[in-house]
Amino acid sequence: MPFARAAIIGVGLMGASLARAIRKNSLARAIAGCGRSRDNLDYALGKGYVDSITHDPVEAVMDADLVVLATPVDTLEAIAASIAGNLKPGALVLDVGSIKGALVARIQSVMPDGVEFVGCHPIAGSESAGAAASVDGLFVGTECLITPTGTNTDKAVNRARELWEAIGSRVRLMDAMEHDELLGLVSHFPHMAAYAMINAIEERSEGAIALSGAGLKDTTRIAMSPASLWREIGMMNRKNIIPVLDGFISEINKIRNCLEQDDARGLEMLLRKAETRRRAIEG
Amino acid sequence: MPFARAAIIGVGLMGASLARAIRKNSLARAIAGCGRSRDNLDYALGKGYVDSITHDPVEAVMDADLVVLATPVDTLEAIAASIAGNLKPGALVLDVGSIKGALVARIQSVMPDGVEFVGCHPIAGSESAGAAASVDGLFVGTECLITPTGTNTDKAVNRARELWEAIGSRVRLMDAMEHDELLGLVSHFPHMAAYAMINAIEERSEGAIALSGAGLKDTTRIAMSPASLWREIGMMNRKNIIPVLDGFISEINKIRNCLEQDDARGLEMLLRKAETRRRAIEG
Repeated sequence: MPFARAAIIGVGLMGASLARAIRKNSLARAIAGCGRSRDNLDYALGKGYVDSITHDPVEAVMDADLVVLATPVDTLEAIAASIAGNLKPGALVLDVGSIKGALVARIQSVMPDGVEFVGCHPIAGSESAGAAASVDGLFVGTECLITPTGTNTDKAVNRARELWEAIGSRVRLMDAMEHDELLGLVSHFPHMAAYAMINAIEERSEGAIALSGAGLKDTTRIAMSPASLWREIGMMNRKNIIPVLDGFISEINKIRNCLEQDDARGLEMLLRKAETRRRAIEG
Repeated sequence: MPFARAAIIGVGLMGASLARAIRKNSLARAIAGCGRSRDNLDYALGKGYVDSITHDPVEAVMDADLVVLATPVDTLEAIAASIAGNLKPGALVLDVGSIKGALVARIQSVMPDGVEFVGCHPIAGSESAGAAASVDGLFVGTECLITPTGTNTDKAVNRARELWEAIGSRVRLMDAMEHDELLGLVSHFPHMAAYAMINAIEERSEGAIALSGAGLKDTTRIAMSPASLWREIGMMNRKNIIPVLDGFISEINKIRNCLEQDDARGLEMLLRKAETRRRAIEG
């Protein structure tokens, strides 16, 4: 097996799904789960997603040659610092967070000699949370973005790549700053837009969303994502999200102006452009 | 059977799905299908959704005691006028359009004595088009909004209600103007927003949407809806859609300002409000 012992810090939707994928693909002999909620840990242990549970990250990473940080992004740096002194020499430390940017280098800087942190972002998940929301095969057929820096060795990056590929992901290497710009566009922005959409509807007519059909429900499904998680992501990537929101307002105004000026032809051109672009990414 | 002969004008996603539901629930002895595309009509006939096909609405409605107008909303008035002289006394005429407002009264005004038009809007559908996209059981468990006016008799409204209930819909009666205001909010607005979202992403970074995960895909699924249909709906209901877009821009700016001012607490409050509201409508 590639790893003797894996430690998953944060056994939520992502962490538990990853534990299940590691187990299913025989990538580690033993998996330790670490988290704050006892109920959640008990659930993961009871389901056999992990072999042992603890509230203490230091205990979890003891002897682990794979450590996955799967807690909320704004906790990663502190957790990395807290476990750094107890990491096994040669251990590979990964995260699964939606924010990379400067964070990756900061986490790398606290790693002890002989231990490498490699930033990873599997493009998978759902609006749900907790081990009970974990999914068998969550990563199969999805993309995983790996954001190596100058301090990473090829060897560590390849170990990370092989892990993700073994559980069914396609890996793409990307600069950490570029990652945040791109994800701000295709993930963080749509979340902010979906939250704003719900609020716009409810501010205008309280209870009106109860009449929504499948269209509005799909469009705003991601607005059920945990507000605390997306507050963090929003704040940590605000530099990239703000200009996208400005561009979005400009596109809304283009449509609004066609409506205002009774410009059916102009409206259809805008809608058709979007329709064509959206159809192009349909599987 | 409630109806001896039904005529479906426009055998697309909605019309063909309704024909199938009428057949399945034994609501009409024979169903005539009328449309412009020969291929589409042949498909519907071949599949047994309808018993006869024609390009001529006048021929289709001959002897029909149920007539369903299921063509694009901007064609309804002209078609109603063209068939008016040939409608069977006592016939019930319905539509399935997304726009009601003044249109309902205008269609009613061209109906001959003894024939009633009742505006209906089943909240069902998808981003696809054509008889091949029709769905068995499309209306089961969905809401159908009926917008009677002062000229409708209770008898006609009840006949329409019984039809929709027989195929599995819950019926809600609503004023036609109120309908357009509400639908502008929960349906037309999200469509415009989804189109704008795709354009915002593509204007900023061409091809970036190819990296979208399930979240963005769901959020923008309705941007695959036919641009021509939504151009019509947009223009016909622009009076109601414009203020919602303005309210949406204001909600986006609230989020934007929290990001700009590094106000994590304010951002979380906005996101949590939306999360709670959206969760409340989850089945």
